[in-house]
Amino acid sequence: MTRRVVLLAHEGFPDRAKTAVGVLRYADVEVVAVLDREIAEVDDDARVSDYLDDVQDAPIVGRAADAPEFDALVVGIAPIGGGLDQSWRPDLQFALESGADLISGLHYFLSEDERLATLAAEHDADIWDVRQPPSDLTVADGVARDLDCEIVLSVGTDCSTGKMTVTRELYEAAVDRGLDAAFIPTGQTGIVIENWGIPIDRTISDFTAGAVERMLVERQDHDYLFVEGQGSITHPAYSTVTCGILHGAMPDQLVMCHVAGREAIHGYESFEIPNPATVANLYEQVAEPVAPTEIVAGSLNTRGLDEDDAQEALDTYEAQLRVPVADPVREGPDAILEAILE
Amino acid sequence: MTRRVVLLAHEGFPDRAKTAVGVLRYADVEVVAVLDREIAEVDDDARVSDYLDDVQDAPIVGRAADAPEFDALVVGIAPIGGGLDQSWRPDLQFALESGADLISGLHYFLSEDERLATLAAEHDADIWDVRQPPSDLTVADGVARDLDCEIVLSVGTDCSTGKMTVTRELYEAAVDRGLDAAFIPTGQTGIVIENWGIPIDRTISDFTAGAVERMLVERQDHDYLFVEGQGSITHPAYSTVTCGILHGAMPDQLVMCHVAGREAIHGYESFEIPNPATVANLYEQVAEPVAPTEIVAGSLNTRGLDEDDAQEALDTYEAQLRVPVADPVREGPDAILEAILE
Repeated sequence: MTRRVVLLAHEGFPDRAKTAVGVLRYADVEVVAVLDREIAEVDDDARVSDYLDDVQDAPIVGRAADAPEFDALVVGIAPIGGGLDQSWRPDLQFALESGADLISGLHYFLSEDERLATLAAEHDADIWDVRQPPSDLTVADGVARDLDCEIVLSVGTDCSTGKMTVTRELYEAAVDRGLDAAFIPTGQTGIVIENWGIPIDRTISDFTAGAVERMLVERQDHDYLFVEGQGSITHPAYSTVTCGILHGAMPDQLVMCHVAGREAIHGYESFEIPNPATVANLYEQVAEPVAPTEIVAGSLNTRGLDEDDAQEALDTYEAQLRVPVADPVREGPDAILEAILE
Repeated sequence: MTRRVVLLAHEGFPDRAKTAVGVLRYADVEVVAVLDREIAEVDDDARVSDYLDDVQDAPIVGRAADAPEFDALVVGIAPIGGGLDQSWRPDLQFALESGADLISGLHYFLSEDERLATLAAEHDADIWDVRQPPSDLTVADGVARDLDCEIVLSVGTDCSTGKMTVTRELYEAAVDRGLDAAFIPTGQTGIVIENWGIPIDRTISDFTAGAVERMLVERQDHDYLFVEGQGSITHPAYSTVTCGILHGAMPDQLVMCHVAGREAIHGYESFEIPNPATVANLYEQVAEPVAPTEIVAGSLNTRGLDEDDAQEALDTYEAQLRVPVADPVREGPDAILEAILE
């Protein structure tokens, strides 16, 4: 039986609700409602389809108590810092009191929150903190480059540039073509979708590359491994994670992700994003001493642009990167996949 | 009263005993013995001075029970992976049974070892796991570049290239000149010496840059901050940490560290070290989008070379980097400090 899921995305849907959108688009669950009190307050008939195409539809409501019956509540937004917004407590508590599970990718572990843990125990509900990494991680052996798989990693000019999306689209398109592929999730959204994976941004920095390597070694029986990237090598706070994934995964190919028109790091607006070609080159140079690789394609998020503007943005991006590019949501991932399979 | 310390360095002294050597050279303690059973077995009169100049002298003995009375045992070696070598247990237990404290930079926390924790409680001894980071770390705000201090970071071609040493020497030389300087420790040795600091390689990768930033903000009342670097941007396992420090510290100046003659990553011998000039350039390029910086001097470890060979190695290094270089142990840090103050 498909699980019935509520996605918490208060004041963030859809633009700042990566996990919610990822679940709507890719996970094998039935989303019965999205919680966004800001949207629900002004439109009590709001639906996901008012905001997004090509994902499953669901009503948008203001609180968990207004949602149809559900089996799990997924925290579908990832605020900077990963703390718990205290105003979410009524929804979390309602879920547990209804016997529904909580699934959270917050840095703050809900299972260690005394009030929530007590409620979960009382109502026989589970709390799954997706960002809790295995306790037995260790340093990388430096072996990913020796695996007999084609390893493809998504990298970007910033956070939230579509790395999870393009990686997921490429994986699904590869499987549709009959290729033997696996998706390697490194963040909360991918892990929620796949029901497997290590939250790389939560690993001890000495073990970050080793954690990525471990996932690849576990899935080395596949021909293609599509690794979900994180952050950006040019990000003032999150480059640590990006560098660990790049050197831990030792990818054969990179897909470079960018958002059309974005000129500064999201949330760190005083940090300019260089020309995407400069960033692309930097990834290749950082990879070079450990495991040489190359940017083979570009993924551009053109959401919000009309057809003409999107095409212009894609043309510009292709001219910058000098490799095939596409918007994997607007156009599908085929052009990117072709470049990878060449 | 100066603390009397025993340094555990079995089968590692002095070459693979960074922490032991750092304590001998810089810490304000009295080292009463170094433990290295391999050395003690073949020479029961062995002393530190047989191996190292310019550090405090002490006998080298085979086990803690053979050492003069002491107040603390410091685990002075940092094995790859940071586990506990079970053969060290008799020494650790003897120390605790004598009422001496344990100070350890291992990833494996001695304070969480049931047997050792019980012994410590029984004998009123403390266990300080230097690698346990604060529990309230968070993401970087990206503010280090705005601090009104000159921030100097040591970077390297590999682990164990003398980053702690040159940083420490520069700090001490700066203070000797009457400058208002602070040393920012990021690893176990520096933290043991300073009795303060955050073990950066043990922080959650999302918070690594933030942890560095926090230390700089805390010490921003000084004119010069000398930040101890870690790992290498070209290291297959530890580049994660290096990148986090580089972007978290946003240094004004870099000092590039290398070991004369080293051609492959220590412990990862199939990974070649590029020309130091290539690595130096890579640091500048990775820093550029976040906070531009430049290599202003080079630090070369020439230990084991005779005077002529050392000079030749220094000349080569200077020709590669095109900045002033020195071996801060053999020659002192003055040439490097001059380049920084210019």
